[in-house]
Amino acid sequence: MQDDVVGAQPTDEPLAALWRGDLIESAHRGRAAFCDPVGNVLEATGDPEGYTYIRSSAKPFQALPLVVSGAADAFGLTDEEIAVVCASHSGEDHHLAVVRSVLEKAGLSEDYLQNGPHPPFHAPSAARLAHSGEAPRAIHGNCSGKHAGMLALCVYEDWNLLDYREPDHPLQRAILNVISEVCALETDEILLGGDGCGVPAFAMPLKNLATGFARLSTGDHLSDEIAEGCRRAREAMRANPHTVAGTGRFDTRLMQDMDLLAKSGAEGIFACGSEDGWGMAIKISDGAGRAVEPAALSILSNRGFDLPKTDPEEVKDLHGEVVGRIDTVL
Amino acid sequence: MQDDVVGAQPTDEPLAALWRGDLIESAHRGRAAFCDPVGNVLEATGDPEGYTYIRSSAKPFQALPLVVSGAADAFGLTDEEIAVVCASHSGEDHHLAVVRSVLEKAGLSEDYLQNGPHPPFHAPSAARLAHSGEAPRAIHGNCSGKHAGMLALCVYEDWNLLDYREPDHPLQRAILNVISEVCALETDEILLGGDGCGVPAFAMPLKNLATGFARLSTGDHLSDEIAEGCRRAREAMRANPHTVAGTGRFDTRLMQDMDLLAKSGAEGIFACGSEDGWGMAIKISDGAGRAVEPAALSILSNRGFDLPKTDPEEVKDLHGEVVGRIDTVL
Repeated sequence: MQDDVVGAQPTDEPLAALWRGDLIESAHRGRAAFCDPVGNVLEATGDPEGYTYIRSSAKPFQALPLVVSGAADAFGLTDEEIAVVCASHSGEDHHLAVVRSVLEKAGLSEDYLQNGPHPPFHAPSAARLAHSGEAPRAIHGNCSGKHAGMLALCVYEDWNLLDYREPDHPLQRAILNVISEVCALETDEILLGGDGCGVPAFAMPLKNLATGFARLSTGDHLSDEIAEGCRRAREAMRANPHTVAGTGRFDTRLMQDMDLLAKSGAEGIFACGSEDGWGMAIKISDGAGRAVEPAALSILSNRGFDLPKTDPEEVKDLHGEVVGRIDTVL
Repeated sequence: MQDDVVGAQPTDEPLAALWRGDLIESAHRGRAAFCDPVGNVLEATGDPEGYTYIRSSAKPFQALPLVVSGAADAFGLTDEEIAVVCASHSGEDHHLAVVRSVLEKAGLSEDYLQNGPHPPFHAPSAARLAHSGEAPRAIHGNCSGKHAGMLALCVYEDWNLLDYREPDHPLQRAILNVISEVCALETDEILLGGDGCGVPAFAMPLKNLATGFARLSTGDHLSDEIAEGCRRAREAMRANPHTVAGTGRFDTRLMQDMDLLAKSGAEGIFACGSEDGWGMAIKISDGAGRAVEPAALSILSNRGFDLPKTDPEEVKDLHGEVVGRIDTVL
């Protein structure tokens, strides 16, 4: 399996660009796949079979064992708390409070978090933290909700709380198994790498991420218990779009404006899905986060979705003058 | 002219990649051209004719009017001061002192600088500035040497010091004319955009940037006065590689290790040249700075240059564990 995909360069197409003056200064290629819950590719841009790490687009899947096991109910987790477990949050005060609540319900403090510290994505929150003289802690990191959920399940199952990041820990095996079912792959077809927060990152064909979001968004072609877990996770995310990302973030805005479930990830990964019976996944080939929004809006628009009118992101010089924009290719 | 290149996507090839685990997570395509001082393309990867903004790789060219006019000699500028005029410096104390010296010799204070403020590239210097509570000023910006040189020429020529960033200011017209000669293009073949520091950015076929560096590195195929200006600029840069960039930066390391003149720029631009009679230019198509070093080293190595042994840049998770690397494609 692995030998087939090492060094592979799936075919892709230009999806977004930085325009400066009248010229494209830099162009971002990528791939996209729409799938139904069966796993059929409904439409593709570039090669839907090529492998990609799904990074934080996996977070709603990684949350499923917490819900399916009964742990979420046993601890009385709210929809908002389930949403932060699925989040790449911006580290705003509100996010930290929800993460703390998950930990407290599981009887833990933030000292148990092993996601690694980084400053909040939300610039004013990061500036406030820096100004206070406090160093960023794990709870400020965008993955702290995911790790709080992982820890809560470990408490519930009486698993070791210290080595829960290891790929052979029962928690990580449970997550791999649920991703296998939701994304319609055998476990040995999912390749593992290391994610930024120190847990496994999952690589799979792009179409399987799209299929996973089609199933997550509908519950179709899943066992009853996983389907029910998907319903809880998607309703939690849809009801709390700010909790899943944060102020001004694309996933949050998209879920506020449209009837979609959306979750992006590092290195230019984006996935969304609809209860109408499809999932869509995008990989920006070079990993540029700035290309995700114009690429996703363009692909959704080409498929006929009525999108809220948004202007392309402006590129400004250090005097605040607009010198370019991040936009589609043509 | 412009109509031909708007929206054009020059052909390119994979030059670098982020490897995570055993897989390429993100791939960076690009183009490269080797040219002689005549303008002949000696070797190319991808399309050498496609336009690109040359961004800060233009800085040695932008410094030429200061030298050629006699202003640099009139003010008694040292080689190190000429080097900082050609620099995208890291804002280390040493850089600030050299920029201040250029301004003082021209009878100016740093208040005249119009390059716009940003924190020093050099992380310890940026942290020290933040800790002091001082806001970054223009002098900390990587272009402050360039702007100090522009201002010095304006003082020497008795040009307006307040609107020197405008494309029709005699300073900017002098720069465009010298770039036209050095890069072997008519002025109307050079397209203008806005650079980050608020002066014109220049777009041209990639091969013309390579030709410009071949001429800059040799003085061949230039008028005597421009050739002499090129000699001064390249000897200043070669003698002061730390001044041109800074601690740990690729241009600095490359000039310390090899008999080359090197100057990179924003959005994945890199140019270098040798007194042996060639120039080389690279554009990473997606603009990723992280791809420049592996792409440049690979292209120089393929052409037979004996490069210092360096390990690829490691990608670490938030726990400091190595989870990947930025490297060539295969």
